[in-house]
Amino acid sequence: MCNSIGVKFRVTTFGESHSKALGAVIDGCPAGVEFCEDDITKYLNGSGVFDCLKTRRNEPNQPEILSGVYKGRTLGTPVAIVIHNKAADSSQYMQLEGIARPSHAEYEYYSKFGLYDPRGGGRSSGRECVSRHAAAALADKILTSKNIILEPSVIELGGIKITDDQHIGEILKSVLEKSSAGDSTGGIFEVKIKNLPAGVGSPVFQKLDAQIASAVMSVGGVKSVEIGSGIEAARLSGKEANDVFCYDDSGALKTRTNHSGGICGGISTGFDIIVRAAVKPTPSIYIEQDTIDFYHKKNVKINLKGRFDVNFTPRAMAAAVSTLKIIILDNLILSGIIPPDKI
Amino acid sequence: MCNSIGVKFRVTTFGESHSKALGAVIDGCPAGVEFCEDDITKYLNGSGVFDCLKTRRNEPNQPEILSGVYKGRTLGTPVAIVIHNKAADSSQYMQLEGIARPSHAEYEYYSKFGLYDPRGGGRSSGRECVSRHAAAALADKILTSKNIILEPSVIELGGIKITDDQHIGEILKSVLEKSSAGDSTGGIFEVKIKNLPAGVGSPVFQKLDAQIASAVMSVGGVKSVEIGSGIEAARLSGKEANDVFCYDDSGALKTRTNHSGGICGGISTGFDIIVRAAVKPTPSIYIEQDTIDFYHKKNVKINLKGRFDVNFTPRAMAAAVSTLKIIILDNLILSGIIPPDKI
Amino acid sequence: MCNSIGVKFRVTTFGESHSKALGAVIDGCPAGVEFCEDDITKYLNGSGVFDCLKTRRNEPNQPEILSGVYKGRTLGTPVAIVIHNKAADSSQYMQLEGIARPSHAEYEYYSKFGLYDPRGGGRSSGRECVSRHAAAALADKILTSKNIILEPSVIELGGIKITDDQHIGEILKSVLEKSSAGDSTGGIFEVKIKNLPAGVGSPVFQKLDAQIASAVMSVGGVKSVEIGSGIEAARLSGKEANDVFCYDDSGALKTRTNHSGGICGGISTGFDIIVRAAVKPTPSIYIEQDTIDFYHKKNVKINLKGRFDVNFTPRAMAAAVSTLKIIILDNLILSGIIPPDKI
Amino acid sequence: MCNSIGVKFRVTTFGESHSKALGAVIDGCPAGVEFCEDDITKYLNGSGVFDCLKTRRNEPNQPEILSGVYKGRTLGTPVAIVIHNKAADSSQYMQLEGIARPSHAEYEYYSKFGLYDPRGGGRSSGRECVSRHAAAALADKILTSKNIILEPSVIELGGIKITDDQHIGEILKSVLEKSSAGDSTGGIFEVKIKNLPAGVGSPVFQKLDAQIASAVMSVGGVKSVEIGSGIEAARLSGKEANDVFCYDDSGALKTRTNHSGGICGGISTGFDIIVRAAVKPTPSIYIEQDTIDFYHKKNVKINLKGRFDVNFTPRAMAAAVSTLKIIILDNLILSGIIPPDKI
Repeated sequence: MCNSIGVKFRVTTFGESHSKALGAVIDGCPAGVEFCEDDITKYLNGSGVFDCLKTRRNEPNQPEILSGVYKGRTLGTPVAIVIHNKAADSSQYMQLEGIARPSHAEYEYYSKFGLYDPRGGGRSSGRECVSRHAAAALADKILTSKNIILEPSVIELGGIKITDDQHIGEILKSVLEKSSAGDSTGGIFEVKIKNLPAGVGSPVFQKLDAQIASAVMSVGGVKSVEIGSGIEAARLSGKEANDVFCYDDSGALKTRTNHSGGICGGISTGFDIIVRAAVKPTPSIYIEQDTIDFYHKKNVKINLKGRFDVNFTPRAMAAAVSTLKIIILDNLILSGIIPPDKI
Repeated sequence: MCNSIGVKFRVTTFGESHSKALGAVIDGCPAGVEFCEDDITKYLNGSGVFDCLKTRRNEPNQPEILSGVYKGRTLGTPVAIVIHNKAADSSQYMQLEGIARPSHAEYEYYSKFGLYDPRGGGRSSGRECVSRHAAAALADKILTSKNIILEPSVIELGGIKITDDQHIGEILKSVLEKSSAGDSTGGIFEVKIKNLPAGVGSPVFQKLDAQIASAVMSVGGVKSVEIGSGIEAARLSGKEANDVFCYDDSGALKTRTNHSGGICGGISTGFDIIVRAAVKPTPSIYIEQDTIDFYHKKNVKINLKGRFDVNFTPRAMAAAVSTLKIIILDNLILSGIIPPDKI
Repeated sequence: MCNSIGVKFRVTTFGESHSKALGAVIDGCPAGVEFCEDDITKYLNGSGVFDCLKTRRNEPNQPEILSGVYKGRTLGTPVAIVIHNKAADSSQYMQLEGIARPSHAEYEYYSKFGLYDPRGGGRSSGRECVSRHAAAALADKILTSKNIILEPSVIELGGIKITDDQHIGEILKSVLEKSSAGDSTGGIFEVKIKNLPAGVGSPVFQKLDAQIASAVMSVGGVKSVEIGSGIEAARLSGKEANDVFCYDDSGALKTRTNHSGGICGGISTGFDIIVRAAVKPTPSIYIEQDTIDFYHKKNVKINLKGRFDVNFTPRAMAAAVSTLKIIILDNLILSGIIPPDKI
Repeated sequence: MCNSIGVKFRVTTFGESHSKALGAVIDGCPAGVEFCEDDITKYLNGSGVFDCLKTRRNEPNQPEILSGVYKGRTLGTPVAIVIHNKAADSSQYMQLEGIARPSHAEYEYYSKFGLYDPRGGGRSSGRECVSRHAAAALADKILTSKNIILEPSVIELGGIKITDDQHIGEILKSVLEKSSAGDSTGGIFEVKIKNLPAGVGSPVFQKLDAQIASAVMSVGGVKSVEIGSGIEAARLSGKEANDVFCYDDSGALKTRTNHSGGICGGISTGFDIIVRAAVKPTPSIYIEQDTIDFYHKKNVKINLKGRFDVNFTPRAMAAAVSTLKIIILDNLILSGIIPPDKI
């Protein structure tokens, strides 16, 4: 249950960083959606923004659809997608068994489960996101056909705001300079969800913003989620913060502002949904750190080796976008706006 | 389903601002917990922090336990609690039917459901929280017996940071001055969850921080949720942000910092869980505003009358605390740390 | 969770036989359904078939709708219904505390929860069904508007098949004669669900027949559930059992037989759904029985006093019908055949 | 959601008869369970009772564990198991596209989803059960360690009761004789669940018998489910049907009878749970049948070719046993009798 998301369009993911494979089972996808492995490959490639910041292992990422699709169309039955781990190198991790990499989750998994997979972070690895992308590739086919678009952008990296395109080169340089000392940085991203009609979401505990907060916070490394004006909403007055509706001359509904970020009372307003999230710096750094050996209950030093992201904000953003696609589609199906059984 | 929270300790709430009653059904509470109506009344009274900021209707709030308790102990069967609305005055709202109060949710509910309850905000009213409190009163009995404590504090009001007790008088004055012009303000609150053992939570989609984000964002008016260093985590380097474990001389596990806010990989670290949230200013203000009549599709002016909170940060904080108690208990039961069937 | 049924049209019930009240919260009912307390009262009265067989306590059963309805129409928010227990007399039960009434569930509840409510069977009482009826009264309004009809009939009582109307008088006499010696009898009922379109239900674990089996078996005292030819299907050959489709002269789809009972592969065929269930004899009898005192771990004799049904087949049938209405509606909403948000 | 079963030990299955693979994802298995591919292979082989009645395709059924297991022990993360379809021959089915095989589910799937997989029954094929077995192989490891045993037996085949071992040869001959004319037969099986402690299950909608009924009815071809005396309970008197508890001389709790089949009020009594189910005759027969071409809306004749089970009662029984293992384990975990996070 912990590894599933969505109610009607329900995605269950599996896989560790170095297990044989990762994957997703999508239950409740409407029948009749055109979908093939190439859609997933394209989607996976398309999620590769800011590539220069990443230096992760070189996985071919060849997805395989095992079920739920016949003659290129979804059947309404579970779509199982598998992506094999082929380039995983477990050797460096095996000697770290029992040693907590600072701000990774080895100790926490061990506390919960009494044992853990030391290879590459196991289930808590960022590698987990490939399952989200595989499922989102299918959600994306349906959302795109309804013209519902998610627009992500990195808006801050290593403490430096990204204001325009010209700036990015310098920011990246600055980010890489920081990392040249073996340290890492974090960042902030924003996602706009466009063209979602008014009336999507629900009251009280499954508010659309609550679902979004959960989806985005479920991405490893995310430490805050904001909707609309977010934290700044606390510093506005009511008069400033209220998004006043009006009909324009053509009779179309408008608002002058969008402090609410497209959601009010847990239900979409029909205007852009705006989500922002902060991503912590990569916890894997090339600097010696104090830590513990929790097998032997003693203090030790750790020196990490391997290939790490200097900054994984873009990667977290891509995972957030994919997770948001899943829940937005689920809400559209639950509302009957997208028919549940067949497109 | 939208009005339920929790998996094993599962709370379903109901009620509109001016319906006959509000309430909660708590399914899956372990048997044997001492619980009576007085516990709820005390809990409701105890959640009344910063009373000077509130001017809401004068409800007696006499809770009634309808089922699930016998001779003062829970039976393991659903505990239904009802709180009647007695002081609701619908008169001023009836004339506003079809008119959107700015940044309230009338238009959104109407878009979703095709009709809406115009009296006092209906289901989207802050009054909804009384159901959360009633259920949390029961959760609180169990959590307290395990010494799990939630410590809330308002840390910013109307843009002014609250640093110590002495300061509060002036802040409140400042906040009330702003509101004397008929406008309102927002704020930021923080909740510490203390004494939760390591190993609570789950991987991937039901990460403890994801559940917390959803729970807190489900409180009306909350526009951001942060865990640990939150948005500031994006501005730290990896070396700064990593919470380094060590054993002290007595062999006890420690960390020097708690940037992660007590959760790593979606699972508790055993240290304080730290949650922060921003609350928007009260949307009901005593200033004339533009808006729409969505029944007749025309632009109108609106002048709200009635009793509104000048600032509902304390009230949102109390609702967040109650919702967090429900999900923390649910996670403890799901982990078997608190036995599911009988205490 | 245990006290809820349905996914989108989700009913949560509460209440013990002698608690202050019983009731139901219906979450996910589409908005715009005309519904008032009188609908529930009529429904409760209408479920009173074969009244001569019943001698239960004289409850006024005045339902109260606490929320979710405004100006006579559902709001899309939770509809909470409460029915107070007014005629409960706990006196005779209090002296039985710790003593297992044979084939009642006191010992089982005590084993699970470590304590139990000895008054009138507590949560395991047939009284629980009033909550199902209250929720079904709402489901019924929607189903009726779609011309989906449930036709129940008692087909066997005390081992005697009911073949036609003329027979019933004698059967009842025979049933009552058996019971005049203080003993009780059981029976079999059948429910036909008419006009459900083809294509309702789902593959594998949530097959429509699996959902029906669960719903009917969840009624206290039911010991078997059959679909279509049921147990007799095991004695047919494939040639006999196959329901052959054909188009008649008008082009309408027909089958000559309906051994499958309107469901194939877990999905409705578009023909009558046929469900049958066996109900055990009333466990409360006016004959001295051996049993145990599980508080003091010793063998004792028990002589039950009070008002019991001589045969509760009709009552179980009514409860089954109500539960079936809930799940049939839920499936129609999940399929999008009935719109989820608003009628 | 339709393809999942269990709440905490939650199994999601996927795969069509002729898709690349079938499989299961098991979420919520406690960590620390010894489990390897050989366990699955052995379990699959062990479920092959009454082999002479089966003539299905010759699949190697080599299961592959993709995730969730490290060094031979479960990690607490999702265990994904895949079984590739290697011997599927789709050729004969492709020419049947649009033609309803009598009492198969092609028309129903087509009605629901607007398209369907014509190859070997698609998702509604008995082949689906291999996923249940794969998941049950894991459940079985835990149940066996707790000495909870499921004892299945076929008790009727082709209308002939199986009373003792000597008889079986003749019954099989008789069954095969019937089938030599190209026709098929059905049967009845029984499963005893032994050593389940008292107190497992839940009140009202998730009663243990309701869950069992759903689990067993979810197996393709099952048309009835009985608990304990089942349909015969309707023909007993209360005095006969009541299972009277007593303590024997050693102080152990006993009952003279077990009409209730080990469940009362939805909760286990601590005595054997007894489940019976009727299985319809194999719908695929070697006799020409009338049917429809629903693509072209016309009546046609059908002559099925291929390898079919003469009687699939043993196969359905095996699938029922596996599904029961999953839900029994789930209930034990939900009750905390088996720890949820780690064994």
